[in-house]
Amino acid sequence: MAFALSLEALVQLTGGQLVRGNPDLSFHGVAALDAAGPDEVSFLGNEKYRAQFLETRAGVVILPPGINAGPQATALISAANPSLAFAAVVRHFSTGTRELQPGIHPRAIVEPGAILNPTNVRIHPGAVIMTGATIGDGTEIGPNAVIGEEVTIGNDCRIMANVSIRERCRIGNRVILQPGCVIGSDGYGYELHEGKHIKIDQVGIVEINDDVEIGANSTIDRARFGKTVIGQGTKIDNLVQIAHNVVIGSHCLVVSQSGLAGSSKLGNYVTVAAQAGVGGHVTVGDRATLIGRAGVTASVPGDETYAGKPALPMREEMKLQAHVRRLPKLIERVKALEKSIARPD
Amino acid sequence: MAFALSLEALVQLTGGQLVRGNPDLSFHGVAALDAAGPDEVSFLGNEKYRAQFLETRAGVVILPPGINAGPQATALISAANPSLAFAAVVRHFSTGTRELQPGIHPRAIVEPGAILNPTNVRIHPGAVIMTGATIGDGTEIGPNAVIGEEVTIGNDCRIMANVSIRERCRIGNRVILQPGCVIGSDGYGYELHEGKHIKIDQVGIVEINDDVEIGANSTIDRARFGKTVIGQGTKIDNLVQIAHNVVIGSHCLVVSQSGLAGSSKLGNYVTVAAQAGVGGHVTVGDRATLIGRAGVTASVPGDETYAGKPALPMREEMKLQAHVRRLPKLIERVKALEKSIARPD
Amino acid sequence: MAFALSLEALVQLTGGQLVRGNPDLSFHGVAALDAAGPDEVSFLGNEKYRAQFLETRAGVVILPPGINAGPQATALISAANPSLAFAAVVRHFSTGTRELQPGIHPRAIVEPGAILNPTNVRIHPGAVIMTGATIGDGTEIGPNAVIGEEVTIGNDCRIMANVSIRERCRIGNRVILQPGCVIGSDGYGYELHEGKHIKIDQVGIVEINDDVEIGANSTIDRARFGKTVIGQGTKIDNLVQIAHNVVIGSHCLVVSQSGLAGSSKLGNYVTVAAQAGVGGHVTVGDRATLIGRAGVTASVPGDETYAGKPALPMREEMKLQAHVRRLPKLIERVKALEKSIARPD
Repeated sequence: MAFALSLEALVQLTGGQLVRGNPDLSFHGVAALDAAGPDEVSFLGNEKYRAQFLETRAGVVILPPGINAGPQATALISAANPSLAFAAVVRHFSTGTRELQPGIHPRAIVEPGAILNPTNVRIHPGAVIMTGATIGDGTEIGPNAVIGEEVTIGNDCRIMANVSIRERCRIGNRVILQPGCVIGSDGYGYELHEGKHIKIDQVGIVEINDDVEIGANSTIDRARFGKTVIGQGTKIDNLVQIAHNVVIGSHCLVVSQSGLAGSSKLGNYVTVAAQAGVGGHVTVGDRATLIGRAGVTASVPGDETYAGKPALPMREEMKLQAHVRRLPKLIERVKALEKSIARPD
Repeated sequence: MAFALSLEALVQLTGGQLVRGNPDLSFHGVAALDAAGPDEVSFLGNEKYRAQFLETRAGVVILPPGINAGPQATALISAANPSLAFAAVVRHFSTGTRELQPGIHPRAIVEPGAILNPTNVRIHPGAVIMTGATIGDGTEIGPNAVIGEEVTIGNDCRIMANVSIRERCRIGNRVILQPGCVIGSDGYGYELHEGKHIKIDQVGIVEINDDVEIGANSTIDRARFGKTVIGQGTKIDNLVQIAHNVVIGSHCLVVSQSGLAGSSKLGNYVTVAAQAGVGGHVTVGDRATLIGRAGVTASVPGDETYAGKPALPMREEMKLQAHVRRLPKLIERVKALEKSIARPD
Repeated sequence: MAFALSLEALVQLTGGQLVRGNPDLSFHGVAALDAAGPDEVSFLGNEKYRAQFLETRAGVVILPPGINAGPQATALISAANPSLAFAAVVRHFSTGTRELQPGIHPRAIVEPGAILNPTNVRIHPGAVIMTGATIGDGTEIGPNAVIGEEVTIGNDCRIMANVSIRERCRIGNRVILQPGCVIGSDGYGYELHEGKHIKIDQVGIVEINDDVEIGANSTIDRARFGKTVIGQGTKIDNLVQIAHNVVIGSHCLVVSQSGLAGSSKLGNYVTVAAQAGVGGHVTVGDRATLIGRAGVTASVPGDETYAGKPALPMREEMKLQAHVRRLPKLIERVKALEKSIARPD
């Protein structure tokens, strides 16, 4: 099913009425009234946006019955509940809610010994499914993604373009892997021997539990032994580094460009904001928050917000930063003291 | 056309004269006199480099007429203007200036419904062009790159190996995407509902305007609604994160490993140096510069340089840092005061 | 050869004796006694772990002769030296020690003019070897990896899935490139001309010497002229950025998410910890260590540990940080002084 919608298809999709507009028009996305362009769909869900509506450049607007005029170039569709009708359009453009169109593309490469039901999965062209890999029903493997030997992937997952999953890793159900992320690369481990760094075999795996999402070009290393674990419902943003033997609990948020060093542990509902870091073998307690750039170098309890490097409870760090910012004043005060002592009244 | 140049081809390319050298030699790159090796081309453009020339290990040197001797293993070509002749060699090795060799490789995958003129584009093996995608004339799609459904790419673009562009995104003219970058991954947006992070549909797109370059493995998220915008002539380095609904103006420089959070805005001619960050919904004014590691957490006006986190105008931040570095002295002064008061003269 | 091991295969591999267990069992990995699950192999190498053994959930345990009982669901294999026997199992699951199974997959794309011996290399499906590229004996090219024109790769290398190596770069022997890394992307170089950033041709290459490893999704830019160099035995972690014309010495460690700016130089045995940065044209001496987040903005001598930004010798930086943390006390002391002067006894 294509994304682009003709005006007619839009009327059908929304269950609305065409007020006016050229039936040859076609639309490629959705946007707010003040941001939409001629090939986008917008909506008037609330009277307070009437002024925005009158100036919109949207190609078509879904609005309540009874409005027949608007910007000249804008087609109009009336619907009893414009917000609801618009939600249907959003769903149409969302890949997350699209129905799976099963099938194995003739230019996909499914090695003998891969386990999948061709009528219940979709394998895009250029994808490589190596021997012994298992792909669950309802799962989609994007173009040029690589699923390594004996990898298991659960049901209803979306593995996007150019993802790499190395051998033996395990992916749960309803997992989303954005393009380019790497699961199961070798942990970074060497032993210095006679002046050379000798690689330590990394024979563990990565286990990604149900309902996890991993961002574009993020990297998750396999464990030395055992497994690196991403807990259920945890959401990881783009360009995040998760080192070997890390264990992340359930329902955590790990924001872009942050990094968790080897064998670190996050509890449940932990938030790690952008560009933050957690040191090796450090534990962060349940419901803790690390603000952006925080650097946690020793284990910290949960239910607290941390900032700075080395990270302190946020209030303490903020106080210290305030003191630093008042240093010029402090220096003035010391100068004044020196003067008053040098030349006492 | 191969890159490697025989001595004969080099003479032709430069319009020079062979002074001496084995015609069977072949060269694979260019370098300065003091850095070049036996399979590289160098040049003597200025008398002041004569000493370097006499010690060069270059395989061949382009030099002014009248010089017939040099290091024994080095071939010599004379040219009226050695700098100009060398520039032609540089152009030969530059992929940016190579003429497009049109054609669709038999092992490329162009889905029915993709729109392109096979005699005016080059599609490399393993590239996947999905249905409804449009590829402009003069554009090259690298090996194993993935161009999603209904993506539009303008003219004279270079989309390199293993790039992923997701559905409906729009790329202008003369855009360069270095290997592995991801355009149009989902924005990082969830709503906490009964203890679970529920994914918010990301139905917007990414719009990349003319003359933009995006570095290797950088990631640009699609907007929730509407679009994430990269303005004309903006250059983005490697491993940069651009979140959903970010709007970057024209002619900005965004250096490696920096990150722009959701809905942040850069004006025109803004420079964001390496490992810097801009917070969500923050605006940075025209011609502002963020130095390396700066962290901008609130909107800042243009025509100013910012440093530190939270970022301050550079001069203020430098003063504060200087105060911090002089803290030991300040402590000494306070100690002296305490002494002089405890034992007043 | 598959990874999964039947109980019987495990007995053979270890040269042990089956004490008990269902021969239909099969195992997919290794783990410590307290971490192993029902499909993993563990071992009892030391009496002090006996308590862990009695509570293990491992599918099978290799143990010394004479122990015939253990957790009910756990199979048992006895071996004279359980540690040695377990090491053989680890080797089995390690891809690094597996024997090369030569061959070119029919769905790999080897362009005419590529130089390789099909009986001595392994090229996986979807890999693209472009014209003029040379692949040494014993080297494996992963699925959907792209090897550019005239690239040379030495012997016994492992180039993993979705790696991109651009034209003319040179890779030594026994080099490991983890999935998604990019070698030879253009350096970030522009000249501002009439308000536009004009791209400077990047015609150099990347040279990676013997025994180097590069992590997942790391990026190494080609030189403007000449070459970006990674010295012998240097190990680079995930998501690291190496800019154009950087020269890294031998046996360095460059940890995840750190970045080296253009023309910076590392000596030998330098350690750059996570999220650290080295400025453009800066040199770091032999055996120096930059701790996590250190930012080196001017050249520093070797045999020293550096911290902070701008980086100082670690001891100095730690002192300054201690002073900052004691600022509240200093302010109290100044207050006390002010009071005692205002109301002298």
